[in-house]
Amino acid sequence: MSTHTPEESESRESDSFLKKPVSRRSLLKMVGVGGIGLLLGGGGIGMIAAKARTSTNNGVSTLTTGDTIPFYGKHQAGITTPGQNFLSFASFDLTTTSLAEVRLLFKAWTQAAAVMTAGQLLGSDNNNQNLPPSDTGEAAGLSPCKMTITFGVGPSFFDARFGLAGKRPAAFPDLPAFQADALQPEWCGGDIGVQVCADDLQVAFHAIRNLARIGRGKAVLRWTQDGFQRTSTADPKSGTPRNLMGFKDGTGNPHVDDDASMNEIVWAQSGADSWMAGGSYMVARRIRMRIEIWDRSSLSDQESTFGRHRDTGAPLGSKDEFDPLDLKATDASGKPQLPPTSHARLAHMDGKIKILRRAYSYTGGIDAKTGQLDAGLFFICYQRDLSKQFIPMQQTLAASDKLNEYTVHIGSATFACFPGVREGGYIGETLF
Amino acid sequence: MSTHTPEESESRESDSFLKKPVSRRSLLKMVGVGGIGLLLGGGGIGMIAAKARTSTNNGVSTLTTGDTIPFYGKHQAGITTPGQNFLSFASFDLTTTSLAEVRLLFKAWTQAAAVMTAGQLLGSDNNNQNLPPSDTGEAAGLSPCKMTITFGVGPSFFDARFGLAGKRPAAFPDLPAFQADALQPEWCGGDIGVQVCADDLQVAFHAIRNLARIGRGKAVLRWTQDGFQRTSTADPKSGTPRNLMGFKDGTGNPHVDDDASMNEIVWAQSGADSWMAGGSYMVARRIRMRIEIWDRSSLSDQESTFGRHRDTGAPLGSKDEFDPLDLKATDASGKPQLPPTSHARLAHMDGKIKILRRAYSYTGGIDAKTGQLDAGLFFICYQRDLSKQFIPMQQTLAASDKLNEYTVHIGSATFACFPGVREGGYIGETLF
Repeated sequence: MSTHTPEESESRESDSFLKKPVSRRSLLKMVGVGGIGLLLGGGGIGMIAAKARTSTNNGVSTLTTGDTIPFYGKHQAGITTPGQNFLSFASFDLTTTSLAEVRLLFKAWTQAAAVMTAGQLLGSDNNNQNLPPSDTGEAAGLSPCKMTITFGVGPSFFDARFGLAGKRPAAFPDLPAFQADALQPEWCGGDIGVQVCADDLQVAFHAIRNLARIGRGKAVLRWTQDGFQRTSTADPKSGTPRNLMGFKDGTGNPHVDDDASMNEIVWAQSGADSWMAGGSYMVARRIRMRIEIWDRSSLSDQESTFGRHRDTGAPLGSKDEFDPLDLKATDASGKPQLPPTSHARLAHMDGKIKILRRAYSYTGGIDAKTGQLDAGLFFICYQRDLSKQFIPMQQTLAASDKLNEYTVHIGSATFACFPGVREGGYIGETLF
Repeated sequence: MSTHTPEESESRESDSFLKKPVSRRSLLKMVGVGGIGLLLGGGGIGMIAAKARTSTNNGVSTLTTGDTIPFYGKHQAGITTPGQNFLSFASFDLTTTSLAEVRLLFKAWTQAAAVMTAGQLLGSDNNNQNLPPSDTGEAAGLSPCKMTITFGVGPSFFDARFGLAGKRPAAFPDLPAFQADALQPEWCGGDIGVQVCADDLQVAFHAIRNLARIGRGKAVLRWTQDGFQRTSTADPKSGTPRNLMGFKDGTGNPHVDDDASMNEIVWAQSGADSWMAGGSYMVARRIRMRIEIWDRSSLSDQESTFGRHRDTGAPLGSKDEFDPLDLKATDASGKPQLPPTSHARLAHMDGKIKILRRAYSYTGGIDAKTGQLDAGLFFICYQRDLSKQFIPMQQTLAASDKLNEYTVHIGSATFACFPGVREGGYIGETLF
């Protein structure tokens, strides 16, 4: 380590914000404040890792089937990226109160994310007998599986600890208490949110686990959530995925390939909080379904709850899933075809408010208290302004949605998801 | 319902054990003792369901991509079936003490399993506005995804309730307490075990959920466990899957297409307990990994723990994953190349004892006590005699396996998995 290795040069370069040259060893010393986990995790892995993209990937043969979604770009991937099959989500709390350490953490995570989304092993020490392997290894040999890793910071990130209170965007207020919320603290909040999506659950879990490992000493896991819903890659044409109530979920989503629409709905624009320009605000809600009650409801009840036909996904009275909602249509008896309290009608918000949904189903085993299945929807949505999109929509839904009879919101978190990052930069750069 | 429908004829036929003609309505009355859940679940769904296989599947277009594994056969599918990507496992306790009701339950489950593994919707009432849909619907439109459903009964099934104590096989004794076991009752035991495997988690979960629904009033869920490990179908050649320690898991498994070997290792043979002939005894263990400790161990420690190289899966000192274990090989210093306490060496049992492993990884979020990831291996294995296979092997491993430093067994269950069933018959027929 006494000569300059390529890794050292790279460390120096990417740490130029420190305003002085720094060797990899001194960087590790600076970063690590105890334990080998820290030493590996504190920046070492990430800094070294970027090398691996052009290496032979530590001798492990890696399939390169082309199912790679670039990590770097104008926007973070995983927001308008068409939904992959699986979700592995983690909420972290920071244990450090040093903004410089947080910056190092985000640099390390950035480089690790770039390596992992490329389907490569982290780090250079996967064959050194005397060290813990840099990468935990369970995704070795697997393809990138369209993995995306999306980072954001929660409201608590703007508290007194890091001196960033003044940077909290107006479009990122606290959520109000919604009627019928039954939030459990263990499923709420977090300083940092990381959404990993991939077509393979093992690949997605591997990313969360290794990010947690890299964060050791600076950040701890607060809660995690796995999700599924997208159908097997064996069924590429199976269409809009169904939630665990058996209904198609996401039919009304805006088109992610329509840039104008994404700019209007999803991407924060330059302006007062310009560090978020090109980013997006995420809401995540753990919505438990009262499955047993739902399963005893008649098809008529179920369909009037959603305002859609179960089999086709079409609005009530229509034939095709993607037929527009006709709010004025009435049935033979003169009643609205779309009941006033139906989910589809209310969530439509007269066409004036739109969000981008990105939900996954979850199961959490048995509820110890009731013996019933703990399962539901891990709802994620993105928008450019919480106060103008999610909040008024959820206030409407919480007050009147017939679906509330069958669901209960037990978890809630929001994250300001940074703009994308250019190669050589790091996530959060515009804020830090 | 006053005329004979095909469903009624079918009900009568498959219930000929009742020794008298029975209409579908009276069957439902007999079976259901309260509530619409029971009415639907008690046999109604299953009995009707078999029809759906030749129907248009309730108007929902179903992909038939050929990824169907037949439910009926000499052996139950899901034992020697090459491992699918996902697991959804359920342990049930019976709430009925009537063997006749248990028999009806197994008949209903048999028919439901045949329908679901064929990728069809359950039941005939999926478009009747006035009734709860027969099928919960979340797998509608998805292909069968190679789903298998495997049923077994636990030791408690042979207690005083059903008068079957005399039928308990000698090859199915209670497991002894193993050294270092840290079993938690909520992950142990059960009257009935149902292993569902499929290449899609939503499809697998759908099966467990609907079986639980059919069982309402007779059986309740005791615990459930999802699992993953097999790689995405996008990676068909990714080889032996890796566990969450990053090592390949299952390399030493016997070949499932070798009938002689399967008869020797897996399938119970005719003899004293002939009702199990063609069945197999399953052990399921929830093995939590001490991930954080493992991740801090050197590659050398990790490899000498498994007795295999991490990257290739080859035995220490060998090159290829499938090279035979050389128990006599020594290194330059004269020490055994395969350490005496290595997992591979101990589990090899001098080649005298073999089992068929079928393990999946699991994650269960955060351990509330420690803030660490609750993750590990849901180990499943099959054999023809617990007393001669799993028990002595696990006694050896529990006493000496170096892997014990990094794992803790927190759940345990055993199930006598019935022989396969011919079309028209039902699971458990040979016992009941």
